Amino acid sequence: MLSFANDYSEGAHEKILQKLIDTNMESLPGYGSDRYCDLAKEKIREACRCEDADIHFLTGGTQTNQIVIDSMLAKYEGVIAATTGHVNVHEAGAIEYTGHKVLELPHTDGKLAAAEIGHYMESFYGDVNHEHMVFPGMVYITHPTEYGTLYTKRELSDISAVCTKYHVPLYLDGARLGYGLAGENTDVTLPDIAEYCDVFYIGGTKVGALCGEAVVFTKRNTPAHFMTLIKQHGALLAKGRLLGIQFDTLFTDDLYLENGRNAIRMAGLLRNAFEEKGYTFYLKTPTNQIFIVLENARMRELQDKVIFDFWEKYDENHTVVRFATSWATSEEDVKKLISLL
Amino acid sequence: MLSFANDYSEGAHEKILQKLIDTNMESLPGYGSDRYCDLAKEKIREACRCEDADIHFLTGGTQTNQIVIDSMLAKYEGVIAATTGHVNVHEAGAIEYTGHKVLELPHTDGKLAAAEIGHYMESFYGDVNHEHMVFPGMVYITHPTEYGTLYTKRELSDISAVCTKYHVPLYLDGARLGYGLAGENTDVTLPDIAEYCDVFYIGGTKVGALCGEAVVFTKRNTPAHFMTLIKQHGALLAKGRLLGIQFDTLFTDDLYLENGRNAIRMAGLLRNAFEEKGYTFYLKTPTNQIFIVLENARMRELQDKVIFDFWEKYDENHTVVRFATSWATSEEDVKKLISLL
Amino acid sequence: MLSFANDYSEGAHEKILQKLIDTNMESLPGYGSDRYCDLAKEKIREACRCEDADIHFLTGGTQTNQIVIDSMLAKYEGVIAATTGHVNVHEAGAIEYTGHKVLELPHTDGKLAAAEIGHYMESFYGDVNHEHMVFPGMVYITHPTEYGTLYTKRELSDISAVCTKYHVPLYLDGARLGYGLAGENTDVTLPDIAEYCDVFYIGGTKVGALCGEAVVFTKRNTPAHFMTLIKQHGALLAKGRLLGIQFDTLFTDDLYLENGRNAIRMAGLLRNAFEEKGYTFYLKTPTNQIFIVLENARMRELQDKVIFDFWEKYDENHTVVRFATSWATSEEDVKKLISLL
Amino acid sequence: MLSFANDYSEGAHEKILQKLIDTNMESLPGYGSDRYCDLAKEKIREACRCEDADIHFLTGGTQTNQIVIDSMLAKYEGVIAATTGHVNVHEAGAIEYTGHKVLELPHTDGKLAAAEIGHYMESFYGDVNHEHMVFPGMVYITHPTEYGTLYTKRELSDISAVCTKYHVPLYLDGARLGYGLAGENTDVTLPDIAEYCDVFYIGGTKVGALCGEAVVFTKRNTPAHFMTLIKQHGALLAKGRLLGIQFDTLFTDDLYLENGRNAIRMAGLLRNAFEEKGYTFYLKTPTNQIFIVLENARMRELQDKVIFDFWEKYDENHTVVRFATSWATSEEDVKKLISLL
Repeated sequence: MLSFANDYSEGAHEKILQKLIDTNMESLPGYGSDRYCDLAKEKIREACRCEDADIHFLTGGTQTNQIVIDSMLAKYEGVIAATTGHVNVHEAGAIEYTGHKVLELPHTDGKLAAAEIGHYMESFYGDVNHEHMVFPGMVYITHPTEYGTLYTKRELSDISAVCTKYHVPLYLDGARLGYGLAGENTDVTLPDIAEYCDVFYIGGTKVGALCGEAVVFTKRNTPAHFMTLIKQHGALLAKGRLLGIQFDTLFTDDLYLENGRNAIRMAGLLRNAFEEKGYTFYLKTPTNQIFIVLENARMRELQDKVIFDFWEKYDENHTVVRFATSWATSEEDVKKLISLL
Repeated sequence: MLSFANDYSEGAHEKILQKLIDTNMESLPGYGSDRYCDLAKEKIREACRCEDADIHFLTGGTQTNQIVIDSMLAKYEGVIAATTGHVNVHEAGAIEYTGHKVLELPHTDGKLAAAEIGHYMESFYGDVNHEHMVFPGMVYITHPTEYGTLYTKRELSDISAVCTKYHVPLYLDGARLGYGLAGENTDVTLPDIAEYCDVFYIGGTKVGALCGEAVVFTKRNTPAHFMTLIKQHGALLAKGRLLGIQFDTLFTDDLYLENGRNAIRMAGLLRNAFEEKGYTFYLKTPTNQIFIVLENARMRELQDKVIFDFWEKYDENHTVVRFATSWATSEEDVKKLISLL
Repeated sequence: MLSFANDYSEGAHEKILQKLIDTNMESLPGYGSDRYCDLAKEKIREACRCEDADIHFLTGGTQTNQIVIDSMLAKYEGVIAATTGHVNVHEAGAIEYTGHKVLELPHTDGKLAAAEIGHYMESFYGDVNHEHMVFPGMVYITHPTEYGTLYTKRELSDISAVCTKYHVPLYLDGARLGYGLAGENTDVTLPDIAEYCDVFYIGGTKVGALCGEAVVFTKRNTPAHFMTLIKQHGALLAKGRLLGIQFDTLFTDDLYLENGRNAIRMAGLLRNAFEEKGYTFYLKTPTNQIFIVLENARMRELQDKVIFDFWEKYDENHTVVRFATSWATSEEDVKKLISLL
Repeated sequence: MLSFANDYSEGAHEKILQKLIDTNMESLPGYGSDRYCDLAKEKIREACRCEDADIHFLTGGTQTNQIVIDSMLAKYEGVIAATTGHVNVHEAGAIEYTGHKVLELPHTDGKLAAAEIGHYMESFYGDVNHEHMVFPGMVYITHPTEYGTLYTKRELSDISAVCTKYHVPLYLDGARLGYGLAGENTDVTLPDIAEYCDVFYIGGTKVGALCGEAVVFTKRNTPAHFMTLIKQHGALLAKGRLLGIQFDTLFTDDLYLENGRNAIRMAGLLRNAFEEKGYTFYLKTPTNQIFIVLENARMRELQDKVIFDFWEKYDENHTVVRFATSWATSEEDVKKLISLL
């Protein structure tokens, strides 16, 4: 059956599989100290135009959020996130499990606003009793957000300025970063992200890898003994090559962005079709996730022919659903879907 | 200087000090196994009209919340609380420190509504992805709330019904319970609380003890090896007698309620005076905390003569302040304050 | 350069890579709910002759130990392990990170003895103060052990009996289980392990997979909401297929055991050669790890030609080193190494 | 019945009770910011001859160990302790609960040796894989030890030197410090302890207070936002005065040491009696705990007339028992006990 359920339904880009085959019988040292990890790091540093970048590979997004946030926070600190932030809702309490509170702030279409963060900080340090409260120790944003929206360069720069003012790092969750960098009309580049963020991760799992996320510390700010902390969280792969080889491939010949662009192109075709046929958008997004408000009867009809994602109840008779494209989406499948609309 | 800053500014009720003196040189076993602890438990069971009640003494409120919530939650569960709940704001992340998320719900004057909890539960179990979310494993309420307000018997019974429906315990934080039980026009008694709640604590620190809170498990539901868990949290007093003797005294000759009544009587006098003199109440409360909106200039003037609590900024020119009475407040001091208004 | 450094130096068995390629563009549901996971589970259940076995796939060994132990222990419990146990030494405190103590017991060649465990239990429950101590809540063993040794069926059965007597689960870390099952003169089969252990894991990473371990709960004893706990630990792979496909392949046509047998055959050749040439064994092992005491000068000489593992200092002039074979070791390489000895 | 069970069987020294009465109705600020806390700190600084000492009051010993150790360790660090160390055995895993491993070293009569620590450090940093291990981040000793023994000044200085060499703080648990400072033939003074240790605590609970321990950071090394960390652990007393007043009293007119001296004098009388009457000492101690090996029949006989502590089984027919004196032990009671021997 046709599937637009999400961006992790297929395996990996064929170039990644090919590279795994080509290197398979090489005897390599473990735990990320192999040369493919080194090569991948070098290529990412270059793509970020950030010579100092210190890069570590992890397996999945929740794991990455958990380790980065726990490692960078002091024990008395929590992390600021949008109420809709992935760490606040859909990670089963992985942050709290490490002892840290997620400090919720309101969002607009999944985004945090610099002013909102600034107001929180001001109010916190103005509170006479703030020593009985969790200190805000980091700002967490997603790009693209859970709603497929994107920050502008200006918005990132503003948030970064607030973080600098209050001496807290800015952390960007890039689970779908490839789809953000290739997003429609975005003015945000990878070097911009490396500049404005203190740490971020480049999502592999959802952009064509079997698994894997690349954490980038941009300001010579890697937590001490980060490798030991990764081990302590049970996240250190013995065969680190699995991650190194994948990111080496993704950052060779611009494959990572190419994966992103395919999803955006396919989403564009689909978005136009929804528009032409008069569907109601829940919100307009420039990335690979399209949110549509469907009448429930129509939704059930479509579900027989194509897999898509339930997002949330809209009202008694309508539902918000999500169609996601990806690096693997073919124009043929998009056309099939359009013909069903 | 005159002080209405809070309800823990003085030492302990004189009867408690006297009892400490009288029993001082008795050689007693440690860790809460002494006869004064036993006596206190028996008297509390009687006051609660709950023969099965299992009672444990702890030292402070945050400690109690941390241990009770951590002990009763499964690792995949969090605790529902009002955004204004003490555990959510002013306990420095003590709940998250133990690995559990506080699931915030909106409040009205510090209170949670049964309907709001029910809606959350329904929505949670309706979410197709709820296995990626923190399970709601307990409901936490305060009585009196942080705003000095009280639940009615009906409201408690409704919340209890929702908890029963979804198989989660209802936990009541009674840091100021004495002031709630003696509150104006309340229809909630200690036996009611024992009936509706699965666990609650009777606050000693703010109602006339030097320190100490009595946790009451009402439904034969004490977590296994609770004493070991208390020890693990660093909360097991070697000289448990200190807590047993205090609660034995507080529950002899109705002293606990008597302490509550004094505060309520004094708050009543004060509330009338504020009303007569045309002060603006931030909200009306039936307990020992009075919230007044003061013009900033007037506030600064008063601050020279009486200590009260900054609550929050109201607007550019006004501030919400709190005047608290207690078991120790004398009518003389109230009259002095009134003369300053 | 020739490498006998460990058993995770190469990629994956070629059949695994082939299967990844064959299934790559299938659109599958995420988080382990795909049909390859189901197939793999079914095959493992069969191999274990345990119809009730509940199986979950995780990515690495430390992660698996952390999640299984944390999920099965009550908050007041710790896990008994040999002083040499992997969880006690080389996992960066991953168990303690989750709040649980590792209760060390003496070992013999890496193994725990039933009598030792029984003595500990008896002494614990005989201690008048044991409520101030960590309760023993699980027994952790490795098979093969960190020293490459194996339990006999009788030893497992005896340990299992002690665990049953004291109502604690027996957990077997099978990071190298394939090399144990194929070990020389072992009388322990996979169904035996399923019978004697309450939970164990079948190591994939070291026995021919890119990554992946299969946790097997054998007694209808999976912790409630185990998937949520996996997510909370940051260990739930979005593309669960990566693990399902690998274990499906490993448990098709006996590949898992075949991988084990290759390593054992190669280790046998090597062991004979060491023996013939008069090398000193640190201890004799029936599995894929060979421990040799080398004179330091001789060690440095060899290090120029072959990679092996430093184990520990023996005395001023000697060092214990380890040579490991694996599923990937070729007879050709073994012969080359022998010619160097 | 006569009791020599332990040193926390009675309430508090009468001067403490008197001071609580005298100050009872003073209106004081909460959370340790009152003037009695300030006075007590000043007096402790003086007694330690350490102007920089930063002092915090906590309620009990396990709590203090948990907070100090957790606050001073990085997430990848554990604490070195003797196998017999209180934190390793009788605190229900309170250290591991905070995520940190207790790294056990062998002891001699309850004491750690500098050489043993040095050997551990050398071996740890020599281990090629130490990044997969828990980093030793602190050394924990008790003085007096759990066996009532004392370090000499030279031993402390040697341990301190090892700690300095490896950049880890030395932490001394002084639950019974008063009995150590007053110990027979000791050359260790409070200023010595302040000099050699980076942090230590002065035990109140067992030396005449109702509750309370004073943590002393001696090297301008208090963890950032320590008060918030105390709150987060649920250990911040609202009525901090309770601790301040007690320590103010204990450090007025040398009361703390006076309490210690009484116990030592009484223990001396008792020890002589045991010696004269030919009892077998389990080990000889210079402090308030006396360990005797009793024949079981004799033990049961004595138990009818005096309460003492079971320590451990010696052999089939003998048991090690402990007699403890304290600040509260009267010469009359000692004589009664002697007459029973």
